[in-house]
Amino acid sequence: MTRTLAALAALSLSVPAAATPPPLTLEQQADDALANDTNAYAFVEGLTTEVGPRQAGTEAEARGRAWAAQWLKAKGFKNVADEPFMMDTWLPGDIARARVTAPFAQDLVVLPLGNSAATPAGGVEGEVVFFRTVDELRAAPDGSLKGKIAYISHQMRPSQDGSHYSFAGPVRWVGPGIAASKGAIGVVIKSVGTDHHRNPHTGGTNFPAGVAAIPAGALSLPDAENLERMFARALGKPITLKLEMNPRQIGQTASGNVVGEIVGQNPSLPPVLLACHIDSWWNAPGAFDDGAGCGIIAAAALKVKQAGQPLRTIRVLMAGAEETGLWGSAAYSKAHINEPIAVGLESDFGADRIWRFDSNFRETNPALHKKIAAAVARFGVSAGSDVATGGADLNIVRDQKGALIDLQQDGLRYFDLHHTPDDTLDKIDPAQLRQNVAVWTQVVGILANESTSIQTGGPIPSAPAIMQGQ
Amino acid sequence: MTRTLAALAALSLSVPAAATPPPLTLEQQADDALANDTNAYAFVEGLTTEVGPRQAGTEAEARGRAWAAQWLKAKGFKNVADEPFMMDTWLPGDIARARVTAPFAQDLVVLPLGNSAATPAGGVEGEVVFFRTVDELRAAPDGSLKGKIAYISHQMRPSQDGSHYSFAGPVRWVGPGIAASKGAIGVVIKSVGTDHHRNPHTGGTNFPAGVAAIPAGALSLPDAENLERMFARALGKPITLKLEMNPRQIGQTASGNVVGEIVGQNPSLPPVLLACHIDSWWNAPGAFDDGAGCGIIAAAALKVKQAGQPLRTIRVLMAGAEETGLWGSAAYSKAHINEPIAVGLESDFGADRIWRFDSNFRETNPALHKKIAAAVARFGVSAGSDVATGGADLNIVRDQKGALIDLQQDGLRYFDLHHTPDDTLDKIDPAQLRQNVAVWTQVVGILANESTSIQTGGPIPSAPAIMQGQ
Repeated sequence: MTRTLAALAALSLSVPAAATPPPLTLEQQADDALANDTNAYAFVEGLTTEVGPRQAGTEAEARGRAWAAQWLKAKGFKNVADEPFMMDTWLPGDIARARVTAPFAQDLVVLPLGNSAATPAGGVEGEVVFFRTVDELRAAPDGSLKGKIAYISHQMRPSQDGSHYSFAGPVRWVGPGIAASKGAIGVVIKSVGTDHHRNPHTGGTNFPAGVAAIPAGALSLPDAENLERMFARALGKPITLKLEMNPRQIGQTASGNVVGEIVGQNPSLPPVLLACHIDSWWNAPGAFDDGAGCGIIAAAALKVKQAGQPLRTIRVLMAGAEETGLWGSAAYSKAHINEPIAVGLESDFGADRIWRFDSNFRETNPALHKKIAAAVARFGVSAGSDVATGGADLNIVRDQKGALIDLQQDGLRYFDLHHTPDDTLDKIDPAQLRQNVAVWTQVVGILANESTSIQTGGPIPSAPAIMQGQ
Repeated sequence: MTRTLAALAALSLSVPAAATPPPLTLEQQADDALANDTNAYAFVEGLTTEVGPRQAGTEAEARGRAWAAQWLKAKGFKNVADEPFMMDTWLPGDIARARVTAPFAQDLVVLPLGNSAATPAGGVEGEVVFFRTVDELRAAPDGSLKGKIAYISHQMRPSQDGSHYSFAGPVRWVGPGIAASKGAIGVVIKSVGTDHHRNPHTGGTNFPAGVAAIPAGALSLPDAENLERMFARALGKPITLKLEMNPRQIGQTASGNVVGEIVGQNPSLPPVLLACHIDSWWNAPGAFDDGAGCGIIAAAALKVKQAGQPLRTIRVLMAGAEETGLWGSAAYSKAHINEPIAVGLESDFGADRIWRFDSNFRETNPALHKKIAAAVARFGVSAGSDVATGGADLNIVRDQKGALIDLQQDGLRYFDLHHTPDDTLDKIDPAQLRQNVAVWTQVVGILANESTSIQTGGPIPSAPAIMQGQ
């Protein structure tokens, strides 16, 4: 706004007062976003305040989708819709208790993992068997956990690029299933996270085919460390834990994908697809995960539009039910697989600054890759050489073997907040959020005005060509 | 330990090998504590791991007292006892739920305040009336809250000396009582704290005589801020809240004060009294509040002893039931009022570094005041000119009008943790904890070897003289 006024003031010296000032260029819009964007923050603030947590498949998620669709319409997006799909829905229940009963009786803070079974009313109680890693658990003899509760630990420390999630994530992703297969009556894990607050990190787990789900919970990091100290102090005496939780599977319910468009000058060209997800876990309003991502992509699309109608349509996809199994991503791909996407990008790693740009066309379209890299360097973004794989909600682009860009966010504090009650608005740094909008504006503006095939640099390919891309 | 070995090594060059090295001086012991003390941390680690939360008047607090007494005996303290007293006991229950029901339906994180009443089963629901300050609440007309739920906010930001607690504390201390007196059916406050985690700060509240207790809870800071944003967005539409909690008063139960001594060369001299409290709120193991304080005073007493038997007895008082109304402090004073205390000091403000020394005898015994100030300067402790008032568990010294010293701790992050589930072992910085032990060792060592009356500098006064002191 300040820049616009300055431009107007400068202009008034040299042209008749009635002349319309030229719109800011794309570069100027991106710079303006860095200093002044309010749309991204307003989106997250509104969503987290007026809706709050949005567990997939529930009425709260439906309210979130309605809120987002209304917001997009109010901001001038076209073709706004909430495209429905059905999904298997798990609910967390309202009881989550863990208590060490001997030898050091005290309560621990626990939350159920997605797909956890319920305990019987009153809970299950058993001796805790301590596994320092998933590999140690894998090595336990079959049947050795019969009647017992497994506790699985890990060492996870922050990394810039999120690689620590791949390192520690299996504790949650496969640990409970392995424990169940060896006869455990319950399992608790050290939260897959890096903070030290009494807020467990939930998240999905899966039980292998033929293995019945068991009660599976995450302890907060301080509680997990306390339990580990108990093992060091119990000197071989058994540690017993009582676990009570009442989550449940409720069968199929409806979810949906919210879409909206900034319509391009040539709507017959494949659109640029910007993705995020609108659902969150029940325990937090999902400011970082992924309200911020939805705010960023929508704000960037609006900013690109301010530089003039783009050549291609920019479509935003605020997917439903990402957290519980990428239901929205799968449904979107199934419904639209025959509609080519020019290039896909997703924002789903919080609200901290973008530090690296990667694509999957660095080899096949080096000119475009270099052009984008050069354009974002002034925002502190380096040119990466990883092959972009796209976010969770970009199944359609991967299914089409299409072009992908990853705008990597700083992950150092992402797993302090991820899937915990602490994922609230106050964690968002407005300055870093604006840097995201600036970088996205710059990148999306280039892509949406690219007249040739983004992937090959040659003529715009037909759908099958894109689908058979690199 | 390192210094001891170095001293031994140096000694071996000049004296026969069989000679006993002289003990470290008091100054050397204090320096050694700064580098090497493990007792304070071991106390907090053991208490928080093997006992956990210790709500006043419960069996968990009794286990905490037994654990502490056992630890003191094992470390060589004499005359260890758990001196019983009776108290009025409030229990928090196991249900604490708050849900905005309109217009922005979502759950908020709440915990009951000490002395809160229970809601009916199923909860109470009412329109929320927003008060930015206690003064605004005071100004509300009588009866104006009939059938409604009061929400009381404040602005609290960290301060070095804890003065922000006096500033914001009335919201909790008197706010609920005022709301009840004006007809409210419930009250929630913005937690009296400075963090941004989903962990409410509990703490005691009181209802005036003739005003029946109502359900009273604390919202976490992020939840309170969310509620305030709702008011900004509701544009005058009523915001309704459903509150459900089941705390209860259970009448009188037993608590106790744990005491132990390093017996002095002249046990007939009034002892130096070092105080802390052993109870915590139910929601955390009380590492900062006040496991650390008990660890610090016990570790310092042991360190002073290592410099040689002190002239005066050093008595530690690990008071019971501080949090719910200073029951232990009152009981101790009542039981021992006729036994003069030479000087009292308390550690009950976390585990961060000591930055200032104050006494209440700067005018009456300037030589001693200056001697102590000079001795602690090397630990980064400044000489203050406030008049020390002593900690919560030093009622006996105040009742005797005796000498008091305050070793002020850095309070900048104390109210991030105070009375929240987050008050866990991991929050303790071992280096700062050792600085506390070092300063306490230095100060207590001087006091316990002071042959003249600490308060006046004259002959050791009789009990009545101390009781009639300044």
